[in-house]
Amino acid sequence: MRIGILGTGSVGTTLAGALAARGNEVVVGTRDPAGTMARTEPGPMGNPPFPAWQAEHPEVRLGTFAEAAEHGEVVINASNGAASLEVLKLAGAEHLEGKILVDVSNPLEFSGGVLSLWVANTDSLAERIQRAFPGAKVVKTLNTMNAQVMVDPGRVAGGEHHVFVSGDDPQARTRVAGLLRDWFGWRHVLDLGDLTSARGAEMILPLWIRVMGSLGTAEFNFRIVTGAAPAADPT
Amino acid sequence: MRIGILGTGSVGTTLAGALAARGNEVVVGTRDPAGTMARTEPGPMGNPPFPAWQAEHPEVRLGTFAEAAEHGEVVINASNGAASLEVLKLAGAEHLEGKILVDVSNPLEFSGGVLSLWVANTDSLAERIQRAFPGAKVVKTLNTMNAQVMVDPGRVAGGEHHVFVSGDDPQARTRVAGLLRDWFGWRHVLDLGDLTSARGAEMILPLWIRVMGSLGTAEFNFRIVTGAAPAADPT
Repeated sequence: MRIGILGTGSVGTTLAGALAARGNEVVVGTRDPAGTMARTEPGPMGNPPFPAWQAEHPEVRLGTFAEAAEHGEVVINASNGAASLEVLKLAGAEHLEGKILVDVSNPLEFSGGVLSLWVANTDSLAERIQRAFPGAKVVKTLNTMNAQVMVDPGRVAGGEHHVFVSGDDPQARTRVAGLLRDWFGWRHVLDLGDLTSARGAEMILPLWIRVMGSLGTAEFNFRIVTGAAPAADPT
Repeated sequence: MRIGILGTGSVGTTLAGALAARGNEVVVGTRDPAGTMARTEPGPMGNPPFPAWQAEHPEVRLGTFAEAAEHGEVVINASNGAASLEVLKLAGAEHLEGKILVDVSNPLEFSGGVLSLWVANTDSLAERIQRAFPGAKVVKTLNTMNAQVMVDPGRVAGGEHHVFVSGDDPQARTRVAGLLRDWFGWRHVLDLGDLTSARGAEMILPLWIRVMGSLGTAEFNFRIVTGAAPAADPT
């Protein structure tokens, strides 16, 4: 499958590597490919500079945001939330038209050491993206866990935990749920409904970061448990 | 133990019944005890009118907010979030001074069928309460699940799921964690740290309500899973 990924940070490269390893044709988009290939400093999450990463993933092509979006049958927004609307504009509405746009970004903001969201509660980044690109089928997912867990849910608790999907197009949600299973082995995909539910998915981030602080690791996830028996599971 | 509970709704009565059944001396506070005892209509959650409930729980006393707060060694705010600051004012700062104030309320607001919070992201209801009552030791907890699950975590997945505590006083957080274990059998209490973490705990509500909608039941909870093995648990 042809997949365009917008963003060369730790989330974008982690998704790109995992999707290419599964035989997909992946183009990663960036603002300035020459500039990205000239990077020598590690990223803010300690991830290697893009050229070092790409040397180990020669099957992943680098292009502009527009080239990546044009290439993809499915496009994944893995850009920094603060830049996502601009990144998608550079990608081009015409390259998103009619396509599923998987949005994994979060509108994170740190001030005084405390995480907040720059859009929340009565709106969400996913809804803003959908309003700005009405021809795309935005599906919010994978934004509620660490990048390593996104692409390999089995590394935490044997995969017995949940990922959410939100989107206004029911068929697109179902399609993405299937892709999450096929691509990464997600066993528990919970369909939250229309894109207003992305507010809830994005608003879990302030809790997520405090749980990370308490546990001392980002290698965790939320599992929804129901029923009386310990092993019960809703999906 | 003497416990004062503010609020006669489904959360307040569920907590009161469970705590009295464990041998605690419980006073439930309301604005106008005579008016509460004259109620004949069920509550908004389908819970019985207070007099019908109390007939089955004669050991629970009803009083004013001030009487309940004065009675309690620990005071629990189980009032509607929209009314909580006023309820606590009626309870009286002098009756909260130096005491643990367990805050289980949520700043919920429904408009157009979608849940939002009237304080969120850069502040929380718990922090507002703490600022208004600096002599109380506010601990946010139990606000992330259905009332039946609060008092009987074992009814869901054998109790293998989490409750959070947030508060500026570390000893108060530890004390409340112990009370949650002793009172209701909570096995997994995750200490999130200072009261700014209550933002995260309150901000899970918009996700909670969508998960409830997807599952078709309020009898669920979030479990934090870590580690590689399916049964791994952090606490």
